[in-house]
Amino acid sequence: MSDLKSRRDACFGAGSTLFYSDPIHIVRGEGVHLFDADGRRYVDMYNNVPSVGHCHPHVVEAVSNQLGTLNVHNRYLHEGILEYAERLIGKHHDGIESVVFSCTGTEANEVAMMMARGATGAEGIICTDAAYHGNSTEVDRLSHCKANTGNVRSIPFPETFRFGQVDAPTGDPLDYFIGKLTEVIAGFERDGVGLAGLLVCPIFANEGLPNVPAGFLSKARDLVHDAGGLMISDEVQAGVCRTGRWWGYEVMEFLPDIVTMGKPLGAGFPVAATAASRELVETFRKKTRYFNTFASSPAQAAAGNAVLDVIEKEHLLESVAAVGDWLRTELAKFKDQCEPMADVRGSGLFAALEWVKDRVSLEPDRAGAIRVVDALKDRGFLTSNAGAYGNVVKLRPPLVFSQNDAEEFMTAFEDVLTDLHG
Amino acid sequence: MSDLKSRRDACFGAGSTLFYSDPIHIVRGEGVHLFDADGRRYVDMYNNVPSVGHCHPHVVEAVSNQLGTLNVHNRYLHEGILEYAERLIGKHHDGIESVVFSCTGTEANEVAMMMARGATGAEGIICTDAAYHGNSTEVDRLSHCKANTGNVRSIPFPETFRFGQVDAPTGDPLDYFIGKLTEVIAGFERDGVGLAGLLVCPIFANEGLPNVPAGFLSKARDLVHDAGGLMISDEVQAGVCRTGRWWGYEVMEFLPDIVTMGKPLGAGFPVAATAASRELVETFRKKTRYFNTFASSPAQAAAGNAVLDVIEKEHLLESVAAVGDWLRTELAKFKDQCEPMADVRGSGLFAALEWVKDRVSLEPDRAGAIRVVDALKDRGFLTSNAGAYGNVVKLRPPLVFSQNDAEEFMTAFEDVLTDLHG
Repeated sequence: MSDLKSRRDACFGAGSTLFYSDPIHIVRGEGVHLFDADGRRYVDMYNNVPSVGHCHPHVVEAVSNQLGTLNVHNRYLHEGILEYAERLIGKHHDGIESVVFSCTGTEANEVAMMMARGATGAEGIICTDAAYHGNSTEVDRLSHCKANTGNVRSIPFPETFRFGQVDAPTGDPLDYFIGKLTEVIAGFERDGVGLAGLLVCPIFANEGLPNVPAGFLSKARDLVHDAGGLMISDEVQAGVCRTGRWWGYEVMEFLPDIVTMGKPLGAGFPVAATAASRELVETFRKKTRYFNTFASSPAQAAAGNAVLDVIEKEHLLESVAAVGDWLRTELAKFKDQCEPMADVRGSGLFAALEWVKDRVSLEPDRAGAIRVVDALKDRGFLTSNAGAYGNVVKLRPPLVFSQNDAEEFMTAFEDVLTDLHG
Repeated sequence: MSDLKSRRDACFGAGSTLFYSDPIHIVRGEGVHLFDADGRRYVDMYNNVPSVGHCHPHVVEAVSNQLGTLNVHNRYLHEGILEYAERLIGKHHDGIESVVFSCTGTEANEVAMMMARGATGAEGIICTDAAYHGNSTEVDRLSHCKANTGNVRSIPFPETFRFGQVDAPTGDPLDYFIGKLTEVIAGFERDGVGLAGLLVCPIFANEGLPNVPAGFLSKARDLVHDAGGLMISDEVQAGVCRTGRWWGYEVMEFLPDIVTMGKPLGAGFPVAATAASRELVETFRKKTRYFNTFASSPAQAAAGNAVLDVIEKEHLLESVAAVGDWLRTELAKFKDQCEPMADVRGSGLFAALEWVKDRVSLEPDRAGAIRVVDALKDRGFLTSNAGAYGNVVKLRPPLVFSQNDAEEFMTAFEDVLTDLHG
């Protein structure tokens, strides 16, 4: 293990991210389970990429067959990728008609930004101040963005948990956050930048899955449209049934102009996509001549189609909603008896447990959240800490996480709470 | 076929790139061959991604086995990706010690630009005026760049073919191009931008595989280093035995500080990489906390290791050098009798045939090159036109292209020349 770690430091450079102070050496995956080199079984409650379960046989077979038949770029005609594009578009609202495939969520957001800027002729992109949308030079500007000059600017992420607390704003939360958005839009107009779009994760996953003032994103959409901009919904984390709905924008009740998708699309085969109206996509094609060598390939199509097959055949949308609701209801029962766990939020199989130092200050307790994550790992459950303050215990298992898995988890979780907080 | 085309226009938007005015519908690949829906066989002389041959059974088996065992992100320990990193680094010169994996060539060049800027504290990147290095907002600035202000600026691509012709510079080509580089470096210093690096494809593939004045890139390296910058070799097209050497920088006899790799690494499974000294990689890790969900995965490792296995076991490096030399020698024999084909260039299995309107003006004949590409397609050989003027017939088969394949091609090529040019 220490040998692997030192080889890793040499190969990747020290500082390459590794989970847990005592990292784990995973060698096999199956369903919701991961197994380490000593044969120890973990229940995976972190990974959203293998959303249909690790190494799902239908996905493995489909990709393997395709790799053995043909895998080439998209400048020849091929039926698989058309079928996949049609199926994926069909899961969206009627305004989503065409798609640009790429390989990573970063690339999908690059395309979305270029598409919005190209279509509007304006440069301004608005994000939140605690977002993460990818790792390229341009998309990274949206990460934890505090800018109020230039062509990327941020608003405070919408939330109600700390609203009204010490050092936090007062008044109506919806008015407050809409007011902030109005200010940034006005700033773009004043400075001659113009508004290309608002780009957000509809459930604000990296911000910590906050409870968002009701109607915020539909009101935001009206404001953005009035200013000539486009609504971009980053569904890389929120999409593909994670929330118990197909897309995060359904939970938040608004219709985006552009959607970006990634992580779970190919169950680990790199697949990402940016979808919009046919007009927006064609304008983008004309302006950029965008081409992505590995994207829209027969193998991407095989992976993507196989994931959709499994979701449909195994009724994962329904099971995510049911198991997720049960899990969050059970978790919420501990709020009264466990002071540090001040809030339980989320939707579907994506839950956030807010860890605080006390219920008066609501000061984020990042170390406390990490202690819970470590204690869960010791009991065989893989989770992580996240959110704007790193103090949120994030639960995000593959979508095949069952009622039995949820019950097994609750037993361990109760045990952890007893151990750590009496 | 027309049904596929209209479905494609709807799904991807009209304007999504498609080869040939009468596109082909490919359904199967094997070795150097692609087969269309009517069972027609084509010899693939275009694709560099499946460099070990379409659907190589060893690669298919390795990736399939891995997908069935484990495919998860790189924040747990896993041996496969370390083995692959070590093997890939081992193919490079001693100054290349550590690697950052990503999914596409674009992402690899994003990382290289961030790495060079982070390490030098300077912003200026130099490219050529007819390059292509990828499709993100920042990397796209290096495409056909004509800028001489800002933090990305270009030099004319080095070449000797048109040097001294009407409207072209006179004097010594090496002095001329080195002079241009000196000017741009001085401009960056004068404007307070500073030099982060020179980023080029070492064989200038998109520029049209020009004959480069001898010693240009080693002299350029000295100038770049003297100005505090780094040499970045984009090996996405040039690398992995394409030229009959492992890397394009070996052909050009210089040692880059940073290398980027992509296309052939995973035989169609998206794999890309940026490698450099451990110090450069660690500085990058510290400054960016870069993480790429699909990269450094067990499946990327399986694909990458399998490709290296095939190259080694099937002695592809040696065969590329031998077959490529034979092919270019045979092609060059037609230069005297075919006026439009004014130059035959390249190295290994990467050849460029320069099509001109006449031998005096050397005016590029893009339409002529396309006629050759179409005529070769009619005879069952897939090639393309490329280069700064689109007038170069590009021959770039998978590395498993054999002496027999080359002989079969020469028969067809002679036939095409007779047909088109008497």
